Amino acid sequence: MKKIGVILSGCGVRDGSEIHEAVLTLLAIDNSGAKAVCFAPDIELDEVNHLTMQDTGAKRKVLVEAARIARGDIADVKSAKVEELDAIVLPGGFGAAKNLCSFAFEGSKGSVQPDVLKLIRDMAAAKKPICAICIAPAVVALALGKDLAPKLTIGNDPGTAQAIDATGSNHVECPATECVVDRDNLIVSTPAYMLAGGIAEAGKGIEKAIKATLELIK
Amino acid sequence: MKKIGVILSGCGVRDGSEIHEAVLTLLAIDNSGAKAVCFAPDIELDEVNHLTMQDTGAKRKVLVEAARIARGDIADVKSAKVEELDAIVLPGGFGAAKNLCSFAFEGSKGSVQPDVLKLIRDMAAAKKPICAICIAPAVVALALGKDLAPKLTIGNDPGTAQAIDATGSNHVECPATECVVDRDNLIVSTPAYMLAGGIAEAGKGIEKAIKATLELIK
Repeated sequence: MKKIGVILSGCGVRDGSEIHEAVLTLLAIDNSGAKAVCFAPDIELDEVNHLTMQDTGAKRKVLVEAARIARGDIADVKSAKVEELDAIVLPGGFGAAKNLCSFAFEGSKGSVQPDVLKLIRDMAAAKKPICAICIAPAVVALALGKDLAPKLTIGNDPGTAQAIDATGSNHVECPATECVVDRDNLIVSTPAYMLAGGIAEAGKGIEKAIKATLELIK
Repeated sequence: MKKIGVILSGCGVRDGSEIHEAVLTLLAIDNSGAKAVCFAPDIELDEVNHLTMQDTGAKRKVLVEAARIARGDIADVKSAKVEELDAIVLPGGFGAAKNLCSFAFEGSKGSVQPDVLKLIRDMAAAKKPICAICIAPAVVALALGKDLAPKLTIGNDPGTAQAIDATGSNHVECPATECVVDRDNLIVSTPAYMLAGGIAEAGKGIEKAIKATLELIK
């Protein structure tokens, strides 16, 4: 059975993984007969109250909150072994841009959380597929843009697309129900809630992206 | 467009709504062309660390945490208007048994959170369908068991089934991929993670339950 690492960044669109995208990712993996294996970095996040959408000033732990989405079945991303994974997927949410990297604050000049950076670079070096959803292609762009110039989509937002291009990556416009497949670099991306008007629309793109990712596994 | 109230109880299987069940509910509603409208009671919950599965001793707010699943689009269940809803759905998770009612602590002697009780009783009186997932049929059993003796399922756990029966309800065994429809009382239930071995299995039952619920709308 193929093992797909799912890299979470918390639990909630404003300070962690976008919950719908993360769950739709787990659903698409299970529906494909593969096994999802969840990981998150063991770092802190800045809590956002999701009712008021205001920063609370409090901290939570990315790994502990991400465990909510994984129903407890999750490990520190530092422990992820490339040889045990067939592909990885990064769902979106602000956590991808704030916790997995500093794209939210520094754009194309941002850096990637070291454990996540190592996993992404090692997966790419091992010729294993990487799928990134919503804003998460920004993490992949920062990790691999200069070396691989991957084709990626975050939908069609001009400012974000420009920042993606400035990492050395090549942004491609794409609707929410589709995905972009970079066959040379084995990188798949789909806009999800960067564009989607609802969960069913996001789900269609994520389903296609997971299917394309599994098809790229050698 | 049909409006379906989704009654959340937090965000996480051990102290709130089971996240997969809640998201699969929203997906099934959107896929059916209906509109989900999220609610949760404005009360506190006892936080559980989902990595260690230990109580932390800290409190969080049910409505604020549930807002993570609803991407901020949620209201106090006190404000739910029966005349504006065509049906309601209660996803599972320990939050259903601990926050929406006291079934987790008091079994068949438990009581239902007053705002949730009023909504369930008013929906039943208005002959509008109620769908309950996983352990959430316990909330419906406590709210309506004595008056309506509804047919309900929580899967096949003998102790829990006995407690459901002791409320005056009638427990029916059911696999995770199916649902039980009480046509007289317009109540639908499915076991989801009370039985499901994975998200795809839970999803099949939830999809059928939502479809059955929408078909019961008059």
